[in-house]
Amino acid sequence: MSTDFPELNPPARILLGPGPSNVHPRVYRAMMAPVIGYLDPQFLQLLDDTQSPLRAVFRTENDLTIPISGTGTLGMEAAVYNVVEPGDTVVVCVNGFFGTRIADMAGRCGAKVVSVKAEWGSVIEPEPVEAALRANPGTKVVCIVHAETSTGILQPLEEIARIAHEHGALLLVDAVTSLTGCELRADEWGLDVVYSATQKCLSAPPGMAPVTFSPQAADVINARRVPCASFYVDVTMLRAYYGEARRYHHTPPMTMLYALREALRIAVEEGLEPRILRHRRHAEALWAGAEAIGLTLHVARPEHRAPPITTVRVPDGIDEMIVRQGLLAEHNIEIGAGFGELQGKVWRIGLMGYASTAQNVLALLHALETQLSRQGFRLDKGAGVAAASRLLNTA
Amino acid sequence: MSTDFPELNPPARILLGPGPSNVHPRVYRAMMAPVIGYLDPQFLQLLDDTQSPLRAVFRTENDLTIPISGTGTLGMEAAVYNVVEPGDTVVVCVNGFFGTRIADMAGRCGAKVVSVKAEWGSVIEPEPVEAALRANPGTKVVCIVHAETSTGILQPLEEIARIAHEHGALLLVDAVTSLTGCELRADEWGLDVVYSATQKCLSAPPGMAPVTFSPQAADVINARRVPCASFYVDVTMLRAYYGEARRYHHTPPMTMLYALREALRIAVEEGLEPRILRHRRHAEALWAGAEAIGLTLHVARPEHRAPPITTVRVPDGIDEMIVRQGLLAEHNIEIGAGFGELQGKVWRIGLMGYASTAQNVLALLHALETQLSRQGFRLDKGAGVAAASRLLNTA
Repeated sequence: MSTDFPELNPPARILLGPGPSNVHPRVYRAMMAPVIGYLDPQFLQLLDDTQSPLRAVFRTENDLTIPISGTGTLGMEAAVYNVVEPGDTVVVCVNGFFGTRIADMAGRCGAKVVSVKAEWGSVIEPEPVEAALRANPGTKVVCIVHAETSTGILQPLEEIARIAHEHGALLLVDAVTSLTGCELRADEWGLDVVYSATQKCLSAPPGMAPVTFSPQAADVINARRVPCASFYVDVTMLRAYYGEARRYHHTPPMTMLYALREALRIAVEEGLEPRILRHRRHAEALWAGAEAIGLTLHVARPEHRAPPITTVRVPDGIDEMIVRQGLLAEHNIEIGAGFGELQGKVWRIGLMGYASTAQNVLALLHALETQLSRQGFRLDKGAGVAAASRLLNTA
Repeated sequence: MSTDFPELNPPARILLGPGPSNVHPRVYRAMMAPVIGYLDPQFLQLLDDTQSPLRAVFRTENDLTIPISGTGTLGMEAAVYNVVEPGDTVVVCVNGFFGTRIADMAGRCGAKVVSVKAEWGSVIEPEPVEAALRANPGTKVVCIVHAETSTGILQPLEEIARIAHEHGALLLVDAVTSLTGCELRADEWGLDVVYSATQKCLSAPPGMAPVTFSPQAADVINARRVPCASFYVDVTMLRAYYGEARRYHHTPPMTMLYALREALRIAVEEGLEPRILRHRRHAEALWAGAEAIGLTLHVARPEHRAPPITTVRVPDGIDEMIVRQGLLAEHNIEIGAGFGELQGKVWRIGLMGYASTAQNVLALLHALETQLSRQGFRLDKGAGVAAASRLLNTA
């Protein structure tokens, strides 16, 4: 048995892909805390402790703000399934992979799905959303992705929230890649349902999906005609455990809650604004460096780029997979491939949470230069790291 | 901030409740392995590594044997939602809390649910199951719980599997509390869908739910008319990631997979048969000790008791909550309360995985004697530990 099932020994990578990102050392340490029972007074205290920083990172006062016991896709399921029921009309903004996924889920809930489409790499404009709402009176929810991990787009939300509310609809937002890495103001911007995940800018392992529901979203949930299609993420039951009743619903993953708690503690200690600025500063250095190498960023306008996830076009004549394999094998760096409409066309470079550092920007640019040169790509060696370094020094 | 959000410091309890059980030290260590990407060749190797021991503990050759990315209740949802679709007839055996929950889930999938009921503390007999199948021709699935954590019942399965198959139905089994703690033979007994969890007899933290589908169950899934009501646990997509295609579906919780892998490795090293015997030996010592104290076991017939979870009746005149609070505060031992129909009537004592030890049996009996005496319960001090000790010495 020992030969085919040896001790686990995965390498310590530099994770600059679309997630998971590198886990903060303090989060690893927190996960060593002993597992205790889900009704242990000390565990219930931990649940209460986590509420306030969870609301802080979403910038919300929403009472119904809880971590869902799964990874980001289950957060999406919790968000969609709790507010959507059979026969509802749902407008889904689709300009990347995760918008497509929201539409799939809304369909499984029995909704009539109206898609508002844009190119993979463009933002969703307010006008077609308004047109879709005018054409579909009684629409219950508008769904949109804040930072599209598949395209690198950072989506403006305030105007679309205003339009959704004017038409009596909720706004549901995917903040998986943006939470604590981009400006996100749930209450001020009027976001009704927002979900995220632990393995992106929070720098904990994947395993929990924080989600928050506005009072308006809670009203919609309270007025459901049929129960939530999923039992596991039904917040009408979850709130009886996370709230005062402490009624058993399912055993939560204690170790992942320990990780989330420590990740939130680190984020609150750093401060949300400095943390968001850090993500932007390092992303801007990456963008400058990539352009100095001679690469093109897929999202043309800087204000539409999500700092935690940058899409870089694969130059003509370059085998994108060999570049990624070289980065992993020789530099121990993971970056992501494009997929869906962008398969083979872009690389996806994450600078998230603990991994958003000047050192990682320089290490990646250096490694990229090495790998691209080897495939005959003409570049001025050192130009990328120099451009990045100049920006980082002025910060 | 530091005062209301201090460093996490939960106590190291002796966990003898219905789960989570104590995590094996080697599993804690495995969770310190660095998180890496979900398409990293080393991570994919880990997924492959885990397949063989996962099949071994279920005693199955089923190709479709994967860990679901959530806790036990999500395993239940994965099992039920993948084989049940709107309009199906489902027979659910209900003799405890988790049978009730399966019925709830099947209802959310749009099934016609036929309940076969028995007392909370009795097994389900084959005859009423057969009667239900005769009365409902075309029934698609029979659902049943192997070790009912709410009652302590160990359910015989072979005869009911035979009957289900005779009527063209699948047998779906909840093995959350029985996996590696009780004899369980998926293939030999004809179990079509079996799910479990990591935090019981596997002694990893909660966070993954192993599930296995027989070829017959896979055929049912392949023949679905509508997609699985849940996206997150849709095995038609999950198998494209866990299988050779390696198509992204969701980011799995790496750390929990590391934990599961190490827990499986420990179980395989111990050997399934010795491990199951260990659970039985320590449970029998607990039963003898509890009876020597003067307590009554809720499940009368020993062959119907699930060794990992024992229900003990609360004697007249004893405040069950004060006993539990005393165990926790003075002895650092957690046991569980009764709930549902057994609320206030029983305690639930778990001896699961790493926590199924002679030391824990003696520690609990000693502590129980102390707490019961304090409430005026008349007992012969030391009789419980003596009875248990005698049995343990002959082992």
